[in-house]
Amino acid sequence: MASHGFWSLGGDNAGANAGSQSPSTPRAWCQAAAQKFPGGLGSKLCALLNVGDAEKSADPAAKLPPPGEAAGTCGCNKSCNCTKAAVGFSDLYSTDLLPASDGDTKTMTFLQEVVDILLAYIVESFDRETKVIDFHYPNQLLQMNNWELQDEPATLDDILISCRATLKYAIKTAHPRYFNQLSTGLDMVGLAADWLTSTANTNMFTYEVAPVFVLLEYVTLKKMRDIIGWQDGRGDGIFSPGGAISNMYAMLLARFKMFPEVKEKGMSSVPRLAAFTSEHSHFSIKKGAAALGIGTESVICIKADESGKLIPADLERRILEAKQKGFVPFFVSATAGTTVYGAFDPLIAISDICRKYGVWMHVDGAWGGSLLMSRKHRWKLDGVERANSVTWNPHKMMSVPLQCSALLVREEGLMQNCNQMHACYLFQQDKHYDLSYDTGDKALQCGRHVDIFKLWLMWRAKGTIGFEAQIDKCLELSEYLYNKIKDREGYEMVFNGKPQHTNVCFWYLPPGIRYMEDKEERKKRLHKVAPVIKARMMEYGTTMVSYQPQGDKVNFFRMVISNPAATFEDIDFLIEEIERLGQDL
Amino acid sequence: MASHGFWSLGGDNAGANAGSQSPSTPRAWCQAAAQKFPGGLGSKLCALLNVGDAEKSADPAAKLPPPGEAAGTCGCNKSCNCTKAAVGFSDLYSTDLLPASDGDTKTMTFLQEVVDILLAYIVESFDRETKVIDFHYPNQLLQMNNWELQDEPATLDDILISCRATLKYAIKTAHPRYFNQLSTGLDMVGLAADWLTSTANTNMFTYEVAPVFVLLEYVTLKKMRDIIGWQDGRGDGIFSPGGAISNMYAMLLARFKMFPEVKEKGMSSVPRLAAFTSEHSHFSIKKGAAALGIGTESVICIKADESGKLIPADLERRILEAKQKGFVPFFVSATAGTTVYGAFDPLIAISDICRKYGVWMHVDGAWGGSLLMSRKHRWKLDGVERANSVTWNPHKMMSVPLQCSALLVREEGLMQNCNQMHACYLFQQDKHYDLSYDTGDKALQCGRHVDIFKLWLMWRAKGTIGFEAQIDKCLELSEYLYNKIKDREGYEMVFNGKPQHTNVCFWYLPPGIRYMEDKEERKKRLHKVAPVIKARMMEYGTTMVSYQPQGDKVNFFRMVISNPAATFEDIDFLIEEIERLGQDL
Repeated sequence: MASHGFWSLGGDNAGANAGSQSPSTPRAWCQAAAQKFPGGLGSKLCALLNVGDAEKSADPAAKLPPPGEAAGTCGCNKSCNCTKAAVGFSDLYSTDLLPASDGDTKTMTFLQEVVDILLAYIVESFDRETKVIDFHYPNQLLQMNNWELQDEPATLDDILISCRATLKYAIKTAHPRYFNQLSTGLDMVGLAADWLTSTANTNMFTYEVAPVFVLLEYVTLKKMRDIIGWQDGRGDGIFSPGGAISNMYAMLLARFKMFPEVKEKGMSSVPRLAAFTSEHSHFSIKKGAAALGIGTESVICIKADESGKLIPADLERRILEAKQKGFVPFFVSATAGTTVYGAFDPLIAISDICRKYGVWMHVDGAWGGSLLMSRKHRWKLDGVERANSVTWNPHKMMSVPLQCSALLVREEGLMQNCNQMHACYLFQQDKHYDLSYDTGDKALQCGRHVDIFKLWLMWRAKGTIGFEAQIDKCLELSEYLYNKIKDREGYEMVFNGKPQHTNVCFWYLPPGIRYMEDKEERKKRLHKVAPVIKARMMEYGTTMVSYQPQGDKVNFFRMVISNPAATFEDIDFLIEEIERLGQDL
Repeated sequence: MASHGFWSLGGDNAGANAGSQSPSTPRAWCQAAAQKFPGGLGSKLCALLNVGDAEKSADPAAKLPPPGEAAGTCGCNKSCNCTKAAVGFSDLYSTDLLPASDGDTKTMTFLQEVVDILLAYIVESFDRETKVIDFHYPNQLLQMNNWELQDEPATLDDILISCRATLKYAIKTAHPRYFNQLSTGLDMVGLAADWLTSTANTNMFTYEVAPVFVLLEYVTLKKMRDIIGWQDGRGDGIFSPGGAISNMYAMLLARFKMFPEVKEKGMSSVPRLAAFTSEHSHFSIKKGAAALGIGTESVICIKADESGKLIPADLERRILEAKQKGFVPFFVSATAGTTVYGAFDPLIAISDICRKYGVWMHVDGAWGGSLLMSRKHRWKLDGVERANSVTWNPHKMMSVPLQCSALLVREEGLMQNCNQMHACYLFQQDKHYDLSYDTGDKALQCGRHVDIFKLWLMWRAKGTIGFEAQIDKCLELSEYLYNKIKDREGYEMVFNGKPQHTNVCFWYLPPGIRYMEDKEERKKRLHKVAPVIKARMMEYGTTMVSYQPQGDKVNFFRMVISNPAATFEDIDFLIEEIERLGQDL
């Protein structure tokens, strides 16, 4: 594994230094797996993933066992009656599977083969000895397999090869050392639920086509509203395709609540509107304003304090200023857990201002909303019960598989009035069941993916106290990281004081920069450190963590912990790895 | 199974008549499965689904085999080394699974147990002897299981019971006689791909976190644009959460193209806009206009002819009228495959008008776009290559698992300019790879679900010719249905002539209504026929097909065929079933 010139700032010895500590090779993983799992299971797992020989090959397909050898044999004794029968895939096509007549056995065997590949991938993903990523540049990856689509069909053998190749180059988001995004980790019950959801393959628009899922959404949204603190869990809500869309829904509802005529007549019927959010808030607030025809200039960014929290006095000042200019303030989006700093805006003070000026209060808790489930940490969202709407993404801090984002709304009926179009081919009024369960017309979408079952089943499996424990543990780990580096030589914190969420923002200063006296030159060099360390992390595949600049602050690491697989040792590893990869810079 | 008073118009003997022809009981299905699958596999499938004894029980959990008996034994010989080891789930919790230390075997065994339940469900779903739906009213279903969320965790045994209960009351969307929606059927390769997608559990925003999926989206969008007829497949596009959102994207782009200042300044900076679409178009056009601040009144509905196609002369007339009133025409949405009639608007004539008046031409091919893959039927979309944007939902006619919707855009770079917000924590400009693959900033969403892999893998498995054959077969079946009923006694077609898509719209007139002379009374009675037959279909669980009124036309059946499992016999069955369930009305 050679080190690229690009990867270093000054020298090119990082690769050589690092090589000895990089994760063990796939072959070594196979040997370890063979010892760990008895009865040949370890080597079977290894063969399924084809990690034994592919590492030196540019073409993953080239080194696969010949079709029919690994594939199609369950590995069981002949008297076995497991669902995997002896079927060879090199002569079979998708048209041999169900609904083909007599496709039952072939289908079960094919799906079982895929599942075996997935199970092996899962076990490997949690193993710290494996790489988080087997990185290749886009132009390299394009050449590593034939990804092009053809006129002619491929055999099922080729399909299995494609599955293996896809996983080989995928990021192992379940890996205990994957910290790159706010959504990390892989929950086994959540995964099982997502597999079931795919199998049920239906849509959320009516009770008619999704009876159980519609009821589970009803039950779960009520529970979430109850946790927010709305009386008897009353209100409304929806699971939407991500936090950005949930925030857009909130802005749409706020506008409709103040000016219901906007639905028919558009923005030309309403005065110029103004929305307010912290300068540290998520970009989706501006994106939503652009889409809804409000315009990004009508989103007024409120100053945040040093730790990233919105300053209420500045909010009030800007609301008054906007009113004086003839704008109508209609929407304040407070953030509960900002993306970079993890800051929680002061919700009680903000709600006082919103009430005073009659403005809709939204809480973007996409990232921090889950802290409501923790008795220890929910005080950070005190005042959330005063909000008109709340975004809460269980796919982030609760580790529900992607995607799972909820918008909760305090007022009942508003979503329906805002969005309904009464399509008579879908929402027939003369059906034989209670139509209040046909909730599709309150959505912006027509067909809506079933995102509820994975959250519901995980909640069932963990209980509220299980989610609480999982969340508390992530916060404990981040506190451990903060305490470890805040006074450590070579580190500077981006803001003072203990972080409120699991975000720990810091600079690592390599020895060559640490003592530089020229402040400008130091800053310039420091800006390049995080990108190079990150690039090296990806090349070695040892861990992944995010970085960015913010305002006048040069590139810094933003460590976040939402991965339930992470331990104190993984935090130690991260620090050692940053120092190992960055010492020469 | 008693017939409710509600279910009949005049008599209550339908239930008694129908009982003998309803699908065989779950017990009978088990007996048949036991004969079909050797080596005990059939009875194992049956036990997994727990269909043997649950039919008379109000609580599906009550009649399950005791924990530890069915669960946790792979059923194989002792020397078997399949991934299912002997694990009992009644004492295990989700915290015993990965990432728990030594959680490997328990995890694989648990996931394998879930997969066995899913495999059994799949096999059962394709079996015509089983019900499409085991229908219960919402208040009944709420009482059939404990769906409430608790503070305390449940055992994995309880989780498996919840999976079985959820599937027991789910709609079998793979069933060969499920015709209820535009999205029906279940593709086995698509399902495998969706399971893999869930396992990879990542997001589409950057190459960094989804290298393979980002490349596959690139390859597939290019191929789709190529099929549309854009030179060298050039252009742009995105997979979005459904056709409604794809259409909203198109409207957003059209507005931005004409008035780029709208992004910053909002609708107050632009003149009053007007959008045009057929009176038969999908409700998402109006929904989008409401959301984007354009207003539903600015969506001008153009007359359609008797078969549901937009009349170009009326489009031109209404554009001129709007201009005279001071509106700026900016967007025409032609429909390629309307929701109810399946009509294809005349795209060439529409494009001529769009060019003449400088208006963005969008083609909503959510339902009909897939006909582009058929050499026999693609002429119905002649002129689509002149469009500025096209919505095309592979989750409908191509039977890709939900959701999979693409928006294709002719102009490169426009999406990026329209939607980007330059979030520096996500789209860092100093990364070490080609940033043109970080496509997240052109989306309205931030995190975006991976919808590409299931389409790509299916395309790989079938080839373009495989999709073509599947689509042609559905159209052949609908032509068979049309020919069968167009002159049959008791049927009236909603519009004359052969349908262009697989939509066949018709009234069934029971003998008691067929010869009524009072036209008003006849119409009134006929309006109630389809809802009652549909309700009975759901009670007996034999088949499902949609109905609706349209304009001054009373409730009629809209049969659509996108289900690759359907055969000529299933069409025959549908007709027999409608007559059986409706003869007494």
